[in-house]
Amino acid sequence: MPELAPAAGRLRRRIYDVVFLSDTPAGRAFDLLLIAAIVTSVAVVMLDSVASIHARHAEAFLIAEWTFTILFSVEYLVRLAVVQRPVRYARSFYGLVDLGSVLPTFVSFFVPGAQVLLVVRILRVLRIFRILKLATYLTEAETLGRALASSRRKILVFVVTVLTVVTVIGALMYAIESRLPDSGFTSIPVSVYWAVVTLTTVGYGDISPQTPLGQALALVLMIMGYGIIAVPTGIVTVELNRAAGATAALAGAAPGAVIRSCPTCGLATHDADARFCKRCAAPLPGQR
Amino acid sequence: MPELAPAAGRLRRRIYDVVFLSDTPAGRAFDLLLIAAIVTSVAVVMLDSVASIHARHAEAFLIAEWTFTILFSVEYLVRLAVVQRPVRYARSFYGLVDLGSVLPTFVSFFVPGAQVLLVVRILRVLRIFRILKLATYLTEAETLGRALASSRRKILVFVVTVLTVVTVIGALMYAIESRLPDSGFTSIPVSVYWAVVTLTTVGYGDISPQTPLGQALALVLMIMGYGIIAVPTGIVTVELNRAAGATAALAGAAPGAVIRSCPTCGLATHDADARFCKRCAAPLPGQR
Amino acid sequence: MPELAPAAGRLRRRIYDVVFLSDTPAGRAFDLLLIAAIVTSVAVVMLDSVASIHARHAEAFLIAEWTFTILFSVEYLVRLAVVQRPVRYARSFYGLVDLGSVLPTFVSFFVPGAQVLLVVRILRVLRIFRILKLATYLTEAETLGRALASSRRKILVFVVTVLTVVTVIGALMYAIESRLPDSGFTSIPVSVYWAVVTLTTVGYGDISPQTPLGQALALVLMIMGYGIIAVPTGIVTVELNRAAGATAALAGAAPGAVIRSCPTCGLATHDADARFCKRCAAPLPGQR
Amino acid sequence: MPELAPAAGRLRRRIYDVVFLSDTPAGRAFDLLLIAAIVTSVAVVMLDSVASIHARHAEAFLIAEWTFTILFSVEYLVRLAVVQRPVRYARSFYGLVDLGSVLPTFVSFFVPGAQVLLVVRILRVLRIFRILKLATYLTEAETLGRALASSRRKILVFVVTVLTVVTVIGALMYAIESRLPDSGFTSIPVSVYWAVVTLTTVGYGDISPQTPLGQALALVLMIMGYGIIAVPTGIVTVELNRAAGATAALAGAAPGAVIRSCPTCGLATHDADARFCKRCAAPLPGQR
Repeated sequence: MPELAPAAGRLRRRIYDVVFLSDTPAGRAFDLLLIAAIVTSVAVVMLDSVASIHARHAEAFLIAEWTFTILFSVEYLVRLAVVQRPVRYARSFYGLVDLGSVLPTFVSFFVPGAQVLLVVRILRVLRIFRILKLATYLTEAETLGRALASSRRKILVFVVTVLTVVTVIGALMYAIESRLPDSGFTSIPVSVYWAVVTLTTVGYGDISPQTPLGQALALVLMIMGYGIIAVPTGIVTVELNRAAGATAALAGAAPGAVIRSCPTCGLATHDADARFCKRCAAPLPGQR
Repeated sequence: MPELAPAAGRLRRRIYDVVFLSDTPAGRAFDLLLIAAIVTSVAVVMLDSVASIHARHAEAFLIAEWTFTILFSVEYLVRLAVVQRPVRYARSFYGLVDLGSVLPTFVSFFVPGAQVLLVVRILRVLRIFRILKLATYLTEAETLGRALASSRRKILVFVVTVLTVVTVIGALMYAIESRLPDSGFTSIPVSVYWAVVTLTTVGYGDISPQTPLGQALALVLMIMGYGIIAVPTGIVTVELNRAAGATAALAGAAPGAVIRSCPTCGLATHDADARFCKRCAAPLPGQR
Repeated sequence: MPELAPAAGRLRRRIYDVVFLSDTPAGRAFDLLLIAAIVTSVAVVMLDSVASIHARHAEAFLIAEWTFTILFSVEYLVRLAVVQRPVRYARSFYGLVDLGSVLPTFVSFFVPGAQVLLVVRILRVLRIFRILKLATYLTEAETLGRALASSRRKILVFVVTVLTVVTVIGALMYAIESRLPDSGFTSIPVSVYWAVVTLTTVGYGDISPQTPLGQALALVLMIMGYGIIAVPTGIVTVELNRAAGATAALAGAAPGAVIRSCPTCGLATHDADARFCKRCAAPLPGQR
Repeated sequence: MPELAPAAGRLRRRIYDVVFLSDTPAGRAFDLLLIAAIVTSVAVVMLDSVASIHARHAEAFLIAEWTFTILFSVEYLVRLAVVQRPVRYARSFYGLVDLGSVLPTFVSFFVPGAQVLLVVRILRVLRIFRILKLATYLTEAETLGRALASSRRKILVFVVTVLTVVTVIGALMYAIESRLPDSGFTSIPVSVYWAVVTLTTVGYGDISPQTPLGQALALVLMIMGYGIIAVPTGIVTVELNRAAGATAALAGAAPGAVIRSCPTCGLATHDADARFCKRCAAPLPGQR
């Protein structure tokens, strides 16, 4: 969270509270308005790309686009003005997203079609987690993130192995299938693309093997893909389990055990239904 | 379960037992008949939508449809009549489904084709859990439901992240692919649709990238989808595991507990290292 | 395992050992030969269905088919002859499969094309588990089977819910899409078929929604399918975990603990690296 | 890791260190250069297969291919020269891959198109794990490998069952669908191919059932596939979980162990209920 400049005047402090925080009524209202504006502006960009809708509402969309761009530009400048370290904010993730949310409109003067990039605004919606019960959601996101981070080495090993497999099998399929007259396997990169499409069980069907040998190799790849999808799932599950366990362990308790020390021998964890210490038989303090 | 009106006469009580309960022979028979009628009526609606079958049996289907509608309407009115709080029943989930099961036939007088909505009757089949050993199945359903409910925050974080990813990648694909003459990426919404089809590994193949850059981005999206399918699976597994543990704890047995009955109070499960009964403090028999 | 008739002569006993058991050299050799014959005969049936191969080798295939059928018929009759309770064997799973492996050839006299059903012979290959270290594989299969069996109620709840969802969404898609001129959603059953194809992430692409509303509903269904695939995975994982734990618990040991009783206080489980009892400090018997 | 010849001269020892080890600066630099050369040479082979690129740069690619082949051949000979047991190295996995990385170029003199097999070079990239913090990554790879290895029997049972299912269902689909005029189910092998494509949820859509009965059978197969994908995932998760526990045990910490150092021998982890050090029998400090 960017900090407020220390010697800030009352107005600047007030603006800072509204724009950056969301635990005051005004800050919360501002954030909700902002989310609504972001979602609306992204919807405008998306609808504008549909030819039939663009034909009818081109002008309205243009006005809306510029209105949102000017609003977001003003907001960006205000954020830069009230924050203590503007450069640091400008280089942070949200600072870059905020800038990227307005730049494409200006760039579209020189490069027609650059407005498409305005959908990067959708990244600003991630602020939504700040509004809705900040702490709890961040904990959830952190648990997920930590689980993924601590399995990143296993995942890297996994991804390198998968990439090696699809490269070798893609080349083999090219060697087998490319001689057929109307084969889809026109080059090794395309064959590797097909191998990934198959291994991940996406299976577009724009390219598919025609020869019996190619179909047999495809079968091996499919069953392989069906099996190895188990690996990342297993990794993440174990890490999530460990993360859940670690939380419990930090609290000093076995899963399901309640922290209730024995007054005589000090044994700390007892089952929820225990009335006497399981080690020294002393009565335990009052049950729930 | 809707309650019976307290000052109900004998007939009304008898009808209530048959219609709402299923632990008497009559109630059970009624429920089985009802399920059969529901499944048959849904099958009629489904078959009636097949042009070739409709051509031959249109009249028979019309008669069947009205017969079932009148039967279910009568049943609905009877339920309203015998229940203690008719308004509460009418506004409950099953009350609304029961009403929704007959309304479309009447609506089809004014809006032809509304009969399609009669398939909502299939929701009535969920009553089946009440017939087949009620308690056990409800426990299973509750365990599943509780596991999903307690992971709903993690799931929300996950869904918002996924939606952000598909929006950004969909827009990028539109920017890359839309200029090709016969590209399927005709607008950003369609491209986002494609991104979801790919990320979830459904892969219809009605739209697929043609340019090398687009195919490379598709590869990233596929491998991403292959990996992040691990996240909801991991979440649900951990929650189910925790739920299973909680159930075991409710039954008085900690995971890993050994069955060793206390000779004084008879409590059957104690930790492997317990020397005294945790409930009555009597010394436990010698560890094996 | 079918039992041998008690008052069997030497020859009959010898045949029984060869045909039904696989722990003698002769029995093992017979089983391996049998597996080879089964796989070859299934391969013949499969290749015979390929038009181009059939054209060239029709006669050879016919001879092979009859040779295998006669061989398997003789084997079936021998099995019936040496076993103690022929009726019980004939009505067991393997007995029915053995009969089903020869019947189609005879039936094909009257119903041309019935030979296709000869692939049911492949079920005989399941005997392979008996040859390769019987006990261990059966244990694995039983662990899998028990895990699936004890989650069958959760799985039933899950399947009924999924069927209800696809029926309702299929009908909605029919209502939305069927009016388009060249829509694939020609009837409710076809729409339900599409819904299952989408929910399970198979995604053939032979039918796909054309209207924006239909595509939006398809998106919901896909993300749903992506999410709820987590449920059966979670269920099976938890059950397998419990099965693994139960095995360990039966042995009286915590996961990872070694069974090595303290000679002084009798505490049964200690970590693999423990040299002294953690409760009474007596030295533990010799480490591994 | 191949060993150095014991009576090696200084030069040979120096070359061995550079070529086979990666913990010296020179060895590390050599390995990084090697990886870069491998990736570049594979990229050349892949791009060379794209017709439009080949047309423009055929000559440059030919030169690059021969340069890399000569470089890798020299490297292979050097490896053979400095290692203690050349035959053992030549027959090891990496020895065979190193040889396979140069052979296809020479073979392409006699068999045009054999260069495609040069992509086998990508397997050399697996050496990358040796460069980037060897030990840690190998542990991760080993954990994955051990988890897969110890569930190999369950996986074999699973694969045999799946193959039996697809063979039987493929034959049934052939019996049902093959009579239609433009059916894709032209033979049993093709139908089995379709069954695997469907069961693994790949779903190309190049073949799909047309008859109601065929579609119903396809539905069963899809829901089956959706369900049994849970089995390998469950197996791998349980094994990874067990492996994680075993690793923790090797590090001296049982899952759930509390960090409480022994004042005498310093062993850091003891069970929560331990009163004496399990290694040196000294009394442990008071339980918190």
